[in-house]
Amino acid sequence: MKRLDKLKHILEKSGKFPYLITDMSDIFYISNFTGSTAYIFLTEKDNIFVTDGRYEVQSREELDDSWSIKIVSSYPDFLSDMIKKYKRVFVTESMGLGLYNHLIKDVELLIDQKNEISLLRAIKDEEEIKHIRKAYKIASLALENSLKVFKFGETERCWAAYLEYQMKVNGANRESFDTIIASGYRGALPHGVASDKIIEPENPVIIDYGADCRYVSDITRMIYNGKEREILDNLEIISDTVDLAIQHIKPGIKCHEIYDLSKKYLARYGLDVYFNHGLGHSLGIDVHEKPVLNAKDNTIIEENMIFTIEPGVYFPDKYGIRIEETVLVKKNGCEILSSMLKDRYFKI
Amino acid sequence: MKRLDKLKHILEKSGKFPYLITDMSDIFYISNFTGSTAYIFLTEKDNIFVTDGRYEVQSREELDDSWSIKIVSSYPDFLSDMIKKYKRVFVTESMGLGLYNHLIKDVELLIDQKNEISLLRAIKDEEEIKHIRKAYKIASLALENSLKVFKFGETERCWAAYLEYQMKVNGANRESFDTIIASGYRGALPHGVASDKIIEPENPVIIDYGADCRYVSDITRMIYNGKEREILDNLEIISDTVDLAIQHIKPGIKCHEIYDLSKKYLARYGLDVYFNHGLGHSLGIDVHEKPVLNAKDNTIIEENMIFTIEPGVYFPDKYGIRIEETVLVKKNGCEILSSMLKDRYFKI
Repeated sequence: MKRLDKLKHILEKSGKFPYLITDMSDIFYISNFTGSTAYIFLTEKDNIFVTDGRYEVQSREELDDSWSIKIVSSYPDFLSDMIKKYKRVFVTESMGLGLYNHLIKDVELLIDQKNEISLLRAIKDEEEIKHIRKAYKIASLALENSLKVFKFGETERCWAAYLEYQMKVNGANRESFDTIIASGYRGALPHGVASDKIIEPENPVIIDYGADCRYVSDITRMIYNGKEREILDNLEIISDTVDLAIQHIKPGIKCHEIYDLSKKYLARYGLDVYFNHGLGHSLGIDVHEKPVLNAKDNTIIEENMIFTIEPGVYFPDKYGIRIEETVLVKKNGCEILSSMLKDRYFKI
Repeated sequence: MKRLDKLKHILEKSGKFPYLITDMSDIFYISNFTGSTAYIFLTEKDNIFVTDGRYEVQSREELDDSWSIKIVSSYPDFLSDMIKKYKRVFVTESMGLGLYNHLIKDVELLIDQKNEISLLRAIKDEEEIKHIRKAYKIASLALENSLKVFKFGETERCWAAYLEYQMKVNGANRESFDTIIASGYRGALPHGVASDKIIEPENPVIIDYGADCRYVSDITRMIYNGKEREILDNLEIISDTVDLAIQHIKPGIKCHEIYDLSKKYLARYGLDVYFNHGLGHSLGIDVHEKPVLNAKDNTIIEENMIFTIEPGVYFPDKYGIRIEETVLVKKNGCEILSSMLKDRYFKI
């Protein structure tokens, strides 16, 4: 069934017509539109797609004939006129507060707390899995090519620039997020994006990056040429934590259970206190989708969900270790999507 | 005066305490914090900065001692507790609807329609102008280097990848936005980001790109090796339209007047109907800031505002022309920030 039909079926069953969609990833998911500004308004009968003059040609190319396309010069005015005839309209939390306050003068706006589109997006279809595999292939190839030219004595920024260049010439539209190349003490910053710091031969280096090809990839690998026992041990423990999570992920288990067992495993080594973020997240069109593998998420894992698994430990002013794989949940377990990069840490 | 002090002075005068800031560019502007998640809460007495464990080290490094830093594990819970003791709190339109609906249970939320921070940000200070100059320098250098290696017969994606690589190795954190390399018929898409289309020798090519170095640049240049009279004439006319706007921009004139005279100039040649977007926008921390040069913006231009000037004409299925300079408004006119790239269109 087409995604639009699936969504309309759900909205009909749950009595959520009319429904105004404002999130650009939701809009791409439902309509295939890849531009930067548009709105979708769904009623029992109509599928209205609203965009502006910049996207007239593009929207006619990308949308099929399920849609009635409106080219407008003022979004607030057009949307206001369009929804006025209804008593109440369902919207999602991603709607901008400016528009919300403009429209609420005309009509009651009900926020769909359940977020039906996000629930739909959590279970990937075949087409999506194909695109995600491609994003992992491109990212893996880019790191392999980069490892051939990465040299100590260069800046984190230079490594990141080259890795991103490699992703793009191999087909990525952009990086999934600002590439993290965090070496030595900067590794202790879980979000330490590439800086002007020189990468020294004894530094452990966290490389957390991904390719955005409409669907994204997200991978973390490490480089460590040194011989410090503690660092080598921690690399092994973090890698084992990834494996433990991978062994347990399957349909029926709850998200927080995977987080809990990883945290517990790290506690054996006294490392749980240095692990200060979630274990992983879903991804697809966006890098961070729901559900997530953290202490609070009670979602039951289902087939065709996709999760990153990225435990890390951070020692302020010293160094950090993180390794990240991504899995596709299958009937009886999961498949590792990031396995093209067999090694989890490298010497260069 | 420090930006924080300036803002607090304005909030005091306008009676807008307490004030909750949620936009990350606003937060960077006020506090110097460069991470991805934080909130600022200003009262007469206190300057509270709220972030999570990932940014503990970083926030202490980046913020000065004006701030009381709170590291929290749940933003909604902490913010809810913090603002509960007030009757009403001012917020900006950029606040997420989810948080808005969570907090409005505890306290009245008033949206600052005037958006005091955005008004402050429109007038750049010396420090900001220095950073913006750097972003233009890096972008200009990157295009100069790229022009030496760009070849016809390659894809738009490859050109974009190389240009972005050049910006990054020269110091950019990322591209300001997805690089537009739109050749031949794709030039008619005003937002035609680089695709897998091969660039042919007879194609006019729009290159619209910029470097984000905390502050951004935004430049459009064209490549045209062909000899079609119509295209060469339109290049001249668009370049003249840019010059006309530059001649008129100065303190005291209204934004829409600059747009109007450009549109009128294009009408002389019957080209106004092919010019379907605004003439330009402010930029700084973000690529699109206010005020903007369009038909509706009544803002009076002031010294130290910065505007892009980017007229374009688009002929569906044929080609497009756009040229973009950026100006810093001075006492009696303006300075062109993008002038390092002297030529507006190139042969390669």
